[in-house]
Amino acid sequence: MYNKKIREYGIIIGSIPVGNKNSITDVPGVKIGHYTLDNGAIKTGVTAIMPHSGNLFKDKLVAACHVINGFGKSTGLIQIEELGTIETPIILTNTLSVGTGYEAIVRYMLESNEDIGVSTSTVNPIVCECNDGELNDIRGLHIKPSYIFEALNDCNEDFLEGNVGAGTGMICYGLKGGIGSSSRVIELDDKKYIIGVLVLSNFGSLEDFTLNKEHIGPKIKKLIDKCEESEDKGSIICILATDLPLSSRQIKRVIKRMHPGISRTGSYTGSSSGEVCIGFSTANIISHYETESIINISVINENKINKVFRATVEATEEAIINSLICSNTTVGRDNKKVYSLVDFIDIVKKQ
Amino acid sequence: MYNKKIREYGIIIGSIPVGNKNSITDVPGVKIGHYTLDNGAIKTGVTAIMPHSGNLFKDKLVAACHVINGFGKSTGLIQIEELGTIETPIILTNTLSVGTGYEAIVRYMLESNEDIGVSTSTVNPIVCECNDGELNDIRGLHIKPSYIFEALNDCNEDFLEGNVGAGTGMICYGLKGGIGSSSRVIELDDKKYIIGVLVLSNFGSLEDFTLNKEHIGPKIKKLIDKCEESEDKGSIICILATDLPLSSRQIKRVIKRMHPGISRTGSYTGSSSGEVCIGFSTANIISHYETESIINISVINENKINKVFRATVEATEEAIINSLICSNTTVGRDNKKVYSLVDFIDIVKKQ
Amino acid sequence: MYNKKIREYGIIIGSIPVGNKNSITDVPGVKIGHYTLDNGAIKTGVTAIMPHSGNLFKDKLVAACHVINGFGKSTGLIQIEELGTIETPIILTNTLSVGTGYEAIVRYMLESNEDIGVSTSTVNPIVCECNDGELNDIRGLHIKPSYIFEALNDCNEDFLEGNVGAGTGMICYGLKGGIGSSSRVIELDDKKYIIGVLVLSNFGSLEDFTLNKEHIGPKIKKLIDKCEESEDKGSIICILATDLPLSSRQIKRVIKRMHPGISRTGSYTGSSSGEVCIGFSTANIISHYETESIINISVINENKINKVFRATVEATEEAIINSLICSNTTVGRDNKKVYSLVDFIDIVKKQ
Amino acid sequence: MYNKKIREYGIIIGSIPVGNKNSITDVPGVKIGHYTLDNGAIKTGVTAIMPHSGNLFKDKLVAACHVINGFGKSTGLIQIEELGTIETPIILTNTLSVGTGYEAIVRYMLESNEDIGVSTSTVNPIVCECNDGELNDIRGLHIKPSYIFEALNDCNEDFLEGNVGAGTGMICYGLKGGIGSSSRVIELDDKKYIIGVLVLSNFGSLEDFTLNKEHIGPKIKKLIDKCEESEDKGSIICILATDLPLSSRQIKRVIKRMHPGISRTGSYTGSSSGEVCIGFSTANIISHYETESIINISVINENKINKVFRATVEATEEAIINSLICSNTTVGRDNKKVYSLVDFIDIVKKQ
Repeated sequence: MYNKKIREYGIIIGSIPVGNKNSITDVPGVKIGHYTLDNGAIKTGVTAIMPHSGNLFKDKLVAACHVINGFGKSTGLIQIEELGTIETPIILTNTLSVGTGYEAIVRYMLESNEDIGVSTSTVNPIVCECNDGELNDIRGLHIKPSYIFEALNDCNEDFLEGNVGAGTGMICYGLKGGIGSSSRVIELDDKKYIIGVLVLSNFGSLEDFTLNKEHIGPKIKKLIDKCEESEDKGSIICILATDLPLSSRQIKRVIKRMHPGISRTGSYTGSSSGEVCIGFSTANIISHYETESIINISVINENKINKVFRATVEATEEAIINSLICSNTTVGRDNKKVYSLVDFIDIVKKQ
Repeated sequence: MYNKKIREYGIIIGSIPVGNKNSITDVPGVKIGHYTLDNGAIKTGVTAIMPHSGNLFKDKLVAACHVINGFGKSTGLIQIEELGTIETPIILTNTLSVGTGYEAIVRYMLESNEDIGVSTSTVNPIVCECNDGELNDIRGLHIKPSYIFEALNDCNEDFLEGNVGAGTGMICYGLKGGIGSSSRVIELDDKKYIIGVLVLSNFGSLEDFTLNKEHIGPKIKKLIDKCEESEDKGSIICILATDLPLSSRQIKRVIKRMHPGISRTGSYTGSSSGEVCIGFSTANIISHYETESIINISVINENKINKVFRATVEATEEAIINSLICSNTTVGRDNKKVYSLVDFIDIVKKQ
Repeated sequence: MYNKKIREYGIIIGSIPVGNKNSITDVPGVKIGHYTLDNGAIKTGVTAIMPHSGNLFKDKLVAACHVINGFGKSTGLIQIEELGTIETPIILTNTLSVGTGYEAIVRYMLESNEDIGVSTSTVNPIVCECNDGELNDIRGLHIKPSYIFEALNDCNEDFLEGNVGAGTGMICYGLKGGIGSSSRVIELDDKKYIIGVLVLSNFGSLEDFTLNKEHIGPKIKKLIDKCEESEDKGSIICILATDLPLSSRQIKRVIKRMHPGISRTGSYTGSSSGEVCIGFSTANIISHYETESIINISVINENKINKVFRATVEATEEAIINSLICSNTTVGRDNKKVYSLVDFIDIVKKQ
Repeated sequence: MYNKKIREYGIIIGSIPVGNKNSITDVPGVKIGHYTLDNGAIKTGVTAIMPHSGNLFKDKLVAACHVINGFGKSTGLIQIEELGTIETPIILTNTLSVGTGYEAIVRYMLESNEDIGVSTSTVNPIVCECNDGELNDIRGLHIKPSYIFEALNDCNEDFLEGNVGAGTGMICYGLKGGIGSSSRVIELDDKKYIIGVLVLSNFGSLEDFTLNKEHIGPKIKKLIDKCEESEDKGSIICILATDLPLSSRQIKRVIKRMHPGISRTGSYTGSSSGEVCIGFSTANIISHYETESIINISVINENKINKVFRATVEATEEAIINSLICSNTTVGRDNKKVYSLVDFIDIVKKQ
């Protein structure tokens, strides 16, 4: 079921124009897929980010990662940090299913790469997670390897946001969170580039929630009975894609600006929140079997990078809001009910 | 000249109570001193942070540092990172005078410690900086070592904020910035602890300026003629002091929350902004001549640390606003005029 | 089958005395278990490190990690870095089975902790790996979750070294590598403390191999027919345990000294080598359900830490040599034969 | 006075060929200059590294830094880390004179760049240090800004090694240390590239000293009366220059291999040793006033980088040995006498 994004309610976050879809898939080649498990106390799933359509192991992309707060269990980060590349799709799922995600990515990569582990090196699966245990029976370990494959096969330029895929059981600012996306278009020397962001949101206290600089969390809180909400916990995974040529160091600088983007929605970044950012550029391919000793890569003139920073902050803020506004009110395990931001649309619109 | 802080205008930032002075000097033992050079095109100075009143070299404090964006020239950071302690006062001044600050701190420490460099190790001066070159003739290198000593001797629990000391020539959000401070009081097991913050603000674009969640920058911008302001550049130095017992790792986690505090004032953290945070706790003394092999230190139960995080975010945001509201309109080199936020108090109050 | 350790050949590495077992299990409470798969082309396995015998989730240990070279796929590191604790056993296995290891640790921890994922947070599994693909059919993904449980149940103070458990298919300096251990005893204020090291060795070029400062690699190389060996690749995982009270920052400093220990065996730290160090102290328990707001921890007086550094370098060097000398000549997939260092014992002893 | 380097005694370290001068100045454009203060108890000085002969501020070089152990006071590192460039010469001097070095570099850069601090940003001086206080009256602060200029003006392809410039008062492995250099030539696609290293050595215990894998420290120790030597303290600064095209991330990986190089000389990396590495490539110029939005840079195919790693380890080890063998026996403050390695040449040669 498609739910409207925040712009469709007339609320414009930031000043930079968005891409055609206002989505991470505005970056050419990037596709997103989901597998959703939504059945009573089972509220979980998988979201896959496919960085390009070719062979990712043979044609790696320049990438970087940044840990805002490391109360998290993501895999793949130390190799991204060392080599500045990614070589697999990125999987998002629940915390206790990271191992399943890892194994599935291994199998997926082995299928299309006969050389891995025989005549060449192994492969670095990237799996990120948030804890959906408040709504989901996370101890049931309901994610099966086949669901990861389903999500990978589902990858498309068009995809749902909100409580879908890995976002099925997530809670953000005490409201129903999950998958959200947004994009920005910047111009450099008359050429247009896309900054695309996708988040898996599962963090924040309702009392802190701020929408486009309106501190509406307390107003919503008054309307929710028995709001037992307390600390800023949970997590957020932020994925940035761009067709702008960037070095790994530059991508790291860019994704560090996801923190101001998160902060604009009100959070103070709680202690038990695993906040992890991964970014990649589709503009430089690093070939696994490169034969030249010296290769050329394109990078941005760093004097111009502020445009990218501002675009990243705006897209991150808007992606989080989209993860909220696209989600539906959900009842999970032990009859825990979490409301959608849509239920408070009057407060949202009043601003 | 004393200028009113933002609370004196009735604007309350955040929800946690402030200390008696709403200042970093609410932390017992912490003192601040200034030396100001304000003479035509010479608009610069020195601010000293004295972490305690004893012999800092012999009685070091547990500390940590965090670089938000490293376009900066601070000294002393790698040793704080390695050893988790500070052993000198902290000096703030302009970028090109960091060397002078370093040398002065060396001389200051040699004076009171005959052992340094003879029978024991050397000393690690901490000097942080922002670039006041838009208002100040920074190329003139007007800071003399004696001015550092003056600032150190001026250290007191009461001190001015705004365009004073190192803040004399700083610009923040296109307005007059400089020194600002704020504090928060938190309670743990019926005991009260202070989180104190002092900033040297010199960053941000006016168009982004946000005061207590009101996006008033654009409104102010309309009122300023020939506002040539453009990118988010400059820097911010954030100093956190507390009497709460924390380990170096914990302090690092706490001062990472200064970034959300900065973000709340609107900035996206520009590329050429040197944003450096240093924090210390007065609750654990590390003795230079410790004789015991195993020592005991107190630390917070990390399950309770969210209180500290929230207090840090609020105090950082308020300290930045204080640096603006306490500053006076200033005309610097080449007749560059930078307005005080006070000049727009009607806009401020309207929120 | 027990194989003699290097000291039993009369070769003494370093100057500090070793513990009773010259093993990581000299640290009270630490236990090691293996599960070995050694069947034709299947040469792989699991090694488990049990940091203490209680409930690890409820009674966490202070810990740290350090990545020497990040071409590796370990899980759990970012949370160790953030919180400075471990809360599960550590699993070592082959690269492509990290996901299986993660899932098994999740199941193992859920079994003994009904609160995880329901009334409290999730859990942070630590799984480290080396690539045994040259000897092992690594694409076969032969590790099953039950094997991880077998290794955990096998944990004991006495354990085999060499080509056993996760070490079954590893190659180090072109010779058969795998699991090795060593320990050192240091004295502080008349009290004895153990520094214990366990390695999973899978790195280095034969031409660089250096045993106790004798560069014997080239001599061995001459004796091996068709030695196709080339670059320094593979990986090494280094685990340090101690009963000395250390903070997380201090443990990080200590385990950084594993790099000089590795270097003493000749390696220059190749590009594709995943070199990961994890250390923990059994002397400070961090309770998951701590009720006090302020807790006390013991740490070493950092002026005395050089003893610990020296002990760590020596134990790491000796653990690597033990991983070689305890291994047996092995024939793996595609009839690849890798010799044991024991086959060249005359060269070893001649030094 | 020219002293013979270790190769001139017939001792060959490593297997890769050296450049024409076996020096960092084999990298085209790199020049070194000294200013020496050697007068009784005053045993100190300055060494300048000039990365290229043009305007360094306008034509920056790609660079990286790495802190092995952060008990040190170097300036400039956080900006190198953030931006991946250097824009000034590098100054080496004693610990307490870092401020003087900073100020002198500021003045030097202002002289040749009228734009700094007026119409463009400020400048990031790089100053590194070791503590020469055992031989030198370091409390006397004998370095004057003019001496920094003298060293800069002295920069040349030919330069002395040993107890000269910043190396005048340094002690390494209980022997006279100081400035040492070495280089390696590697070939990639039939093109030759230079890896050049310069060290300022001031670390290590004599008992650990190892020369080309011969553990000769204890033998020398026996010959020195009243050898009071104890812990591994002091510091080492390692500078790497190359004409090979590398990204900042790649340079960081390369200079991390200076640690194995240091380790080969015997040290376990003591707690109070400030060990800092800086590397730069002359192959990519980053223009301060770049007008293009997207720029091209050349980097090495990372599959080939092991050659560079091995060359770096060898050159670092040899540079340290050169710093020892080129130094003369020195008597410093309080009649402290430190012997040259040359005094034990029979032991050296016997290997």
